[in-house]
Amino acid sequence: MSERQVVPTPGQVLLHGLVEPAETKLVLVVMDGLGGLPMEPGGPTELEAAATPNLDRLAAEGTVGMSIPVAPGITPGSGVGHLALFGYDPVANPVGRGILDALGIGMEVAPGEVVARGNFCTLAADGTVADRRAGRIPTDECRRLVEKLRAAVHVDGVELAFEPVRDYRMVVRFRGEGLGDRLNDTDPLEVGLKPVHPQGEDEPSRRTARYTAELLQQVRTVLADEHPANYLLLRGFSALPHFPPFGEAYGVRAAALALYPTYRGLARLVGMTVLDAGSTLEEEMAALARHWGEHDFFFVHHKPTDSAGEDGDFARKAAAIEALDAALPAILALRPDVLAVTGDHSTPARMKAHSFHPVPLLLWAPATVRPDEVTSFGERPCMRGGLGQLAAKELMPVLLAHAHRLKKYGA
Amino acid sequence: MSERQVVPTPGQVLLHGLVEPAETKLVLVVMDGLGGLPMEPGGPTELEAAATPNLDRLAAEGTVGMSIPVAPGITPGSGVGHLALFGYDPVANPVGRGILDALGIGMEVAPGEVVARGNFCTLAADGTVADRRAGRIPTDECRRLVEKLRAAVHVDGVELAFEPVRDYRMVVRFRGEGLGDRLNDTDPLEVGLKPVHPQGEDEPSRRTARYTAELLQQVRTVLADEHPANYLLLRGFSALPHFPPFGEAYGVRAAALALYPTYRGLARLVGMTVLDAGSTLEEEMAALARHWGEHDFFFVHHKPTDSAGEDGDFARKAAAIEALDAALPAILALRPDVLAVTGDHSTPARMKAHSFHPVPLLLWAPATVRPDEVTSFGERPCMRGGLGQLAAKELMPVLLAHAHRLKKYGA
Repeated sequence: MSERQVVPTPGQVLLHGLVEPAETKLVLVVMDGLGGLPMEPGGPTELEAAATPNLDRLAAEGTVGMSIPVAPGITPGSGVGHLALFGYDPVANPVGRGILDALGIGMEVAPGEVVARGNFCTLAADGTVADRRAGRIPTDECRRLVEKLRAAVHVDGVELAFEPVRDYRMVVRFRGEGLGDRLNDTDPLEVGLKPVHPQGEDEPSRRTARYTAELLQQVRTVLADEHPANYLLLRGFSALPHFPPFGEAYGVRAAALALYPTYRGLARLVGMTVLDAGSTLEEEMAALARHWGEHDFFFVHHKPTDSAGEDGDFARKAAAIEALDAALPAILALRPDVLAVTGDHSTPARMKAHSFHPVPLLLWAPATVRPDEVTSFGERPCMRGGLGQLAAKELMPVLLAHAHRLKKYGA
Repeated sequence: MSERQVVPTPGQVLLHGLVEPAETKLVLVVMDGLGGLPMEPGGPTELEAAATPNLDRLAAEGTVGMSIPVAPGITPGSGVGHLALFGYDPVANPVGRGILDALGIGMEVAPGEVVARGNFCTLAADGTVADRRAGRIPTDECRRLVEKLRAAVHVDGVELAFEPVRDYRMVVRFRGEGLGDRLNDTDPLEVGLKPVHPQGEDEPSRRTARYTAELLQQVRTVLADEHPANYLLLRGFSALPHFPPFGEAYGVRAAALALYPTYRGLARLVGMTVLDAGSTLEEEMAALARHWGEHDFFFVHHKPTDSAGEDGDFARKAAAIEALDAALPAILALRPDVLAVTGDHSTPARMKAHSFHPVPLLLWAPATVRPDEVTSFGERPCMRGGLGQLAAKELMPVLLAHAHRLKKYGA
């Protein structure tokens, strides 16, 4: 595997040598895509429209603000948004698309393995790409073709794993000795051009490129009779990034509770223990209670806010927020020392997509929090909260500080 | 010309690969020196005292905040303030004083040319500097001396251009092959010392230094009989900086409307198209309407706020703000998608000078803005606005995001 330089955030640099043990417990609740917009001028946002008695009480007792996931104006993907909340600078430490797609479908990736995203495509008789997405074949067709590849494609020296993603998209994982991920996409990006031959930038990546060339040659034979999907374009070759493990960086035993594989994958990527969260929010809360004694830091992920936002369903997003609000007493009953509630990015129902807007942030820590004048949790109240506008990657030091887990810096 | 490394802002680095085309139109109105101070405790600022029904309505519909031009406590010059608003890090990408003075008087400077600022000074009989400003000679005297230099000073191998600025100040432009700008000031900064001999740090700059030495020798002869201005001190040698062009960095066809040459020069410096704005605010608005279809991004400059502030004229500054407010319906009639109103720095009438105070910032973008609780445009309302305190250099990504011109970052 080719080496990557890990760039810690300023917060992580500062924390080095400051982290100290404590008996405290921290919970970070991430409501995916929490931030919203009014549907009409003067109207409330999703969060402001939702009835959230528990969040409002925590906002009154605690302090609020706005989290900036990456930088002003930048709309983050989910991976980027979560890594920032975990304190990893998402710009200095990019994570490959192949890795994120693999995490998204729950595929295990170990250090040293390389993953690439694949598009089933249509090759013309002259070997040029006629359709980069093979007429956007349905997912069932994608599954059938992946099965065919699994059965027929075998490259000496490397173990291949093929998984369907959705429509014409799939991923392939390379498991073997001395693999690198610095190689070009084979997708020519335009129709009428031939696929690009894979070439590595260093010796380990040249090894991956040779396996890839052999793999693609076999794919061409295996899919020769298929239509429209008779070939594969590969891109986003990536190995696991070398993150400083979360538990080591922050001196906590960290665990993740998430119902969706992407978020379990992201937690695993930074070295959290991924717990079995069941399949409902109630089961997720029960799992939290069950494992409360074993860990100090819990990342609790809540997906329905983002899904509803993506669907443009304002009411369903507000209901998803209310569902999380109703689950809060179960968390508070465990007596956490520090509880933070925020999102990885905004997904306003009005925009039906991730957006660049800052994300409401709530911090509750009865022993140490300096309360502000805000008494409810919503975009407008958070704009005048005591935390101001905080870069997401700077949140972890604040949480650790409130948990009495950071020594004084300097004399 | 010696090569300079361009350091993009974090925003510009992030934007690389994210910029995408759209049909949207953006307007950035810069009221020069907008920020102010109360004249007495409890009083309003210039902006708060002005009757601004249009700005107040936009503030109510949009969101506001404070722009920090360079860094807290730093008072910016006009060049620095505008470059920051255009998204260029003014600290990482300094622009030479010679260039800014040349722009300020409307002198054209092309790539490869070098400009220096000159002070007429008084040399004593022993060749030491007796007065670094030649008794602050009046501008008319400066003009006469510059005419004299134009007629008499000619250096082989380089074309020289002399222009008066104000009082004892002038600029000289060197046009020729292979010129560098890494050379010392000849001003010794203290009286009683001899002028410093020009020396270049690299071969192109040594060439400029040789031309400068010859130029100064001739000046000494030509001005020998003059009093008090019998010599010239040169400083701030500078060539055009190598900025990534604005239009390329942000994916827009950008145009500038400004009644003053400095601001047209600054716009030209970053590669904007400079339109003929006429000579009044009404003509400037008419030019905006006339060119509306040809560009996506319009920088509209309004100078009288700064001039009145510099003069310490609170009422005239408030009136200048009101004049801009009255022009806003003409902009809104063009139906921009994104309209931002701010200043390049503060010029409180109370201080009769540029100041370090943050600058009120208003962002109106009906489709995407997240409104805050602020319903008027003024320093105090802006302090609690939804944009918080934003570095001026981070404004462009925010404007582009609201104009749907930025793709999602990462997966």
